Amino acid sequence: MKNLLKKLLLRRVDKRQRIHLNYIEPISNGGCATLIHPTLMIWLTIAVLLWGFQSFAAENGELRGTGDMGVIIERATGSVRIVEHSGNTQLGHIKDLGDLSHASIVFSRDERYAYVFGRDGGLSKIDILENRTVKRVLQSGNSIGGAISQDGKWVAVSNYEPGGVKIFSADTLELVADIPAIGTNGQLSKVIGLVDAPRHRFVFALYDADEIWIADMRDPQNPEIQKFADIGHQPYDALISPDGRYYIAGLFGEDGMALLDLWHPEKGTKRILSGYGKGEQKLPVFKMPHLEGWAIAGNRAFVPAVGRHSVLVIDTQSWQQIDEIPTHSQPVFVMAQPDNRQVWVNFAFPDNDTVQIIDVEQQAVIKTLTPGKGVLHMEFTPRGEHVWMSVRDMDRIDVVDTESFEIIKQLPAEKPSGIFFSSRAHEIGL
Amino acid sequence: MKNLLKKLLLRRVDKRQRIHLNYIEPISNGGCATLIHPTLMIWLTIAVLLWGFQSFAAENGELRGTGDMGVIIERATGSVRIVEHSGNTQLGHIKDLGDLSHASIVFSRDERYAYVFGRDGGLSKIDILENRTVKRVLQSGNSIGGAISQDGKWVAVSNYEPGGVKIFSADTLELVADIPAIGTNGQLSKVIGLVDAPRHRFVFALYDADEIWIADMRDPQNPEIQKFADIGHQPYDALISPDGRYYIAGLFGEDGMALLDLWHPEKGTKRILSGYGKGEQKLPVFKMPHLEGWAIAGNRAFVPAVGRHSVLVIDTQSWQQIDEIPTHSQPVFVMAQPDNRQVWVNFAFPDNDTVQIIDVEQQAVIKTLTPGKGVLHMEFTPRGEHVWMSVRDMDRIDVVDTESFEIIKQLPAEKPSGIFFSSRAHEIGL
Repeated sequence: MKNLLKKLLLRRVDKRQRIHLNYIEPISNGGCATLIHPTLMIWLTIAVLLWGFQSFAAENGELRGTGDMGVIIERATGSVRIVEHSGNTQLGHIKDLGDLSHASIVFSRDERYAYVFGRDGGLSKIDILENRTVKRVLQSGNSIGGAISQDGKWVAVSNYEPGGVKIFSADTLELVADIPAIGTNGQLSKVIGLVDAPRHRFVFALYDADEIWIADMRDPQNPEIQKFADIGHQPYDALISPDGRYYIAGLFGEDGMALLDLWHPEKGTKRILSGYGKGEQKLPVFKMPHLEGWAIAGNRAFVPAVGRHSVLVIDTQSWQQIDEIPTHSQPVFVMAQPDNRQVWVNFAFPDNDTVQIIDVEQQAVIKTLTPGKGVLHMEFTPRGEHVWMSVRDMDRIDVVDTESFEIIKQLPAEKPSGIFFSSRAHEIGL
Repeated sequence: MKNLLKKLLLRRVDKRQRIHLNYIEPISNGGCATLIHPTLMIWLTIAVLLWGFQSFAAENGELRGTGDMGVIIERATGSVRIVEHSGNTQLGHIKDLGDLSHASIVFSRDERYAYVFGRDGGLSKIDILENRTVKRVLQSGNSIGGAISQDGKWVAVSNYEPGGVKIFSADTLELVADIPAIGTNGQLSKVIGLVDAPRHRFVFALYDADEIWIADMRDPQNPEIQKFADIGHQPYDALISPDGRYYIAGLFGEDGMALLDLWHPEKGTKRILSGYGKGEQKLPVFKMPHLEGWAIAGNRAFVPAVGRHSVLVIDTQSWQQIDEIPTHSQPVFVMAQPDNRQVWVNFAFPDNDTVQIIDVEQQAVIKTLTPGKGVLHMEFTPRGEHVWMSVRDMDRIDVVDTESFEIIKQLPAEKPSGIFFSSRAHEIGL
C-alpha cells in the first residue's frame, strides 16, 4: 500500500514537472524577477504533497475489514505478528511488548484493537489496522491473564503478584477500579481463571483463599462483588461454558472441580467430577492442563485428564464422566471445531509434536498428525474450514484444512505460541 | 484500492487541466503583469490539497474496525442504512438497491462487504466502510434469498422465477455456476431455504419437486449435487441448526417437517413433528412463519406454531414436541439471545406492535414489550447485551437492553425491516 502510494506520487511528480516546465518558459523570459520563483513554489508544493500523503498512509494503515484478522504471540522475542485468514498472509509485526510467555489476548468489540496480557504485568493495546502499539501500561509485577467486558468497555487483568484484579478503560487504559483479592482468611491472594460473563460481569477465583468472586461492572468505579467461599482447595485455573452459564474451576489442592451456575448464584458452588485428578501426583501449577482447553459440544464436554493419556467425556447436565478416550499422550488443549463435529488435541512435552483429532459422535481418535516439535496452540477460523497451529520449535505456523487434514499454507513466525483471531470479540468468555 | 487510486488520479488530472486553463488565460492576454500572482498560486495549492485529502477521505471511508457494524434494510425505499453498535449510531446510507421487500443480507468473511439479496432478483455487493455499492447484478426475475459459502468465496442465490440456484464469485459477482432446479418430475422448481453448511456445501429445497439438494462447492464451476426426493409435499422454507448439522424444511402441502442430518446424508431425510401445522387452514406461502426464526438453545428448539398463539418447545434429540408456551399472538420470529437464556418473539399482523420474552429455563413468557406498530425483525449484539428492533410503522430502530428491557437509544430509519450485524460473517448458516 505504501509502496503503491509512493509509486503513484513519483509518477505524479514527473507529470507535474513536465507540465510546469511548459509554462515556466514564458515567465523566465518575461523577466518578472521579483516574484517567488515558480520552480521553488513547485518544489514546495511537491514536498508538502509527499509529506501529507506519506504521513496519511503511515498513520492510517490500509482500509480493510477486520473480521478475518488475527494476532500471533512470539513468546521468545516479546513480539506479535498480525495476520489475516482469508488469504493466509502476514500483515504486520509489533515488537517491544515485554515478556510474552504465557501471554493471552482479547479483542475490542469492533475487532480493531487487541489487548495483550503479558507475564510481566504489562497490558498493551495494539491497533491491528495501523500495526502499532497505542498504549502500554505496566500494571503489576506478574499477571496471568485478562478479559474484556460484554459491552467492550472494560478490560480486567488478574494478577499473581501482588494479586487482585485491576480494571481499565478499554478506550484509554486508564485504571478505573482496583479490586484487592483479600479472602476471608485476610490474606492477599493470587487471582486465576478471570473471564467475562453475560450481564456485565467478570468472574475469577482466589488461589490462596479457596474462593470464587463475581464482579458486577454496572458501576465500573465501584464493582459490586459477590463472594463464594470454601469452593475447594487452591483453584488453579477456570473456564466458562460457551453460553456463559457455567463457571468451572480446577482444584490444585484436592481432587474434583468447583462449579458455579451463573444463572443461579444463589445456589452457591457445587463440587463435580470428584475423581478428576485423583491419584495423580501433584504437579507444579504450570504443568496442570489448561482449562480453557475444554471443548463443549452439545451436552458433552471433552476435558483433558490430569496426568493421564486420555480425554474425558463429561455429561454437562449431570456433570458426570461418561467416557474416557485414550490419546497419544497427556493432553493440553482440547478444542472443539466450530461445527462441534471434531475435537482437536495437542499434548504435553515431550510429546508435543503430535495433534490428534477426536470424532465427537464416535468418541474416538480418528486421525493423528505430527506437525513438528512444540505444537503449543490451535485456533479455528470462525466457521471452521481451517485450523492454524503454532509449531514453536519449527518457527512456523501451519494452516490446516479441517476436512482433508492437508496443510494449506505455512507461515514463518519466531517461536510462536498463542494464536488469537479477531472473531473472539464476538464470543462470550474469550 | 487500485481502482480508487486510479479514480483519484483521473480526477487530479482533470483539476490540473482546469488550473492550467486559468493560467493560460493571462498568458494569452499578454505581459507578465497579468501572470497569476504567487499568493493566488499558494491559495490554489492549498485548495487542491484540501480537496485532495477530503475526497481521499470520503472515498476511502473511515479507517475503523468492522466487527461492530451492521446494515438495516429500508424496504419501502430500496435503501439500506449502515450502523455501528458500539456507540449505536448511523454511519452511512446507500440507495438504489431495487425492491428490498423480503430482502436479506450475508457478509464477507472480513466483515467489510455485505451482499444484499433483493426480491427483484438483484444481488448487490456493498462496501460498508466506503458507504457505496461496489457492484450490482440483476440475476433473475424473482429471488428469495441467498447464502455465502463457509470459505467466503461463493455467494449463492435461490430463485422463484425462473427457479434454480446461481452461484457467484464473492469477489467479482461473476457467475460461476448455474444450477437449474429440475426435479425428478422434470419441472423447473422454485428454490427455497438456501443455506450454507460446513464442508463447503450449500443446501436448499425444491418447492415444486418435494426435494432437498446438497451442492458441494469444492469444484465451484461444477458443484456436485446430492439429491433427496420425496422429502414431503411443498417445502416452503427451511433452517439449519447453529452447528450446521441439521437441515429442517417446513412443508406447505402437508403437516410435519423434513429433517436431514448433514453428518449422515446417507441416512436420507426423515419426517419429524408430524403434528406441526395440523388442522390449520393452509395459508399463502408468505404468511407461513419464517423458519429462520427458530431458536435452538441447548437441547431445546423454540419454534413458532403455525396459526396458533404459541411457541412450541422441541427436544432436539428426539425431535418431539415437549411443551407449548402460550403467547400474545401468532409468532413470526423466535430468536435466542446469544447466551441462550431468553428467547425473544415478535408477532404477525395485526398484533405486530408487541414483543414477548420467554425465559428458557422456566419455559414461560416473563416480559411483554410494546415498542409500536410493525416490529418486523430483531438482531442481538454479538455477546447479547442489547437487541435492535425495527419498528416499521414508527420509522424507528429501538436499541433495547436485554437485561433491564429499557430502551437505550432510538434511531430513525425509513420503514425498516431486516437488521443484520456483521458478526453474522462468523456464523454457520447466517
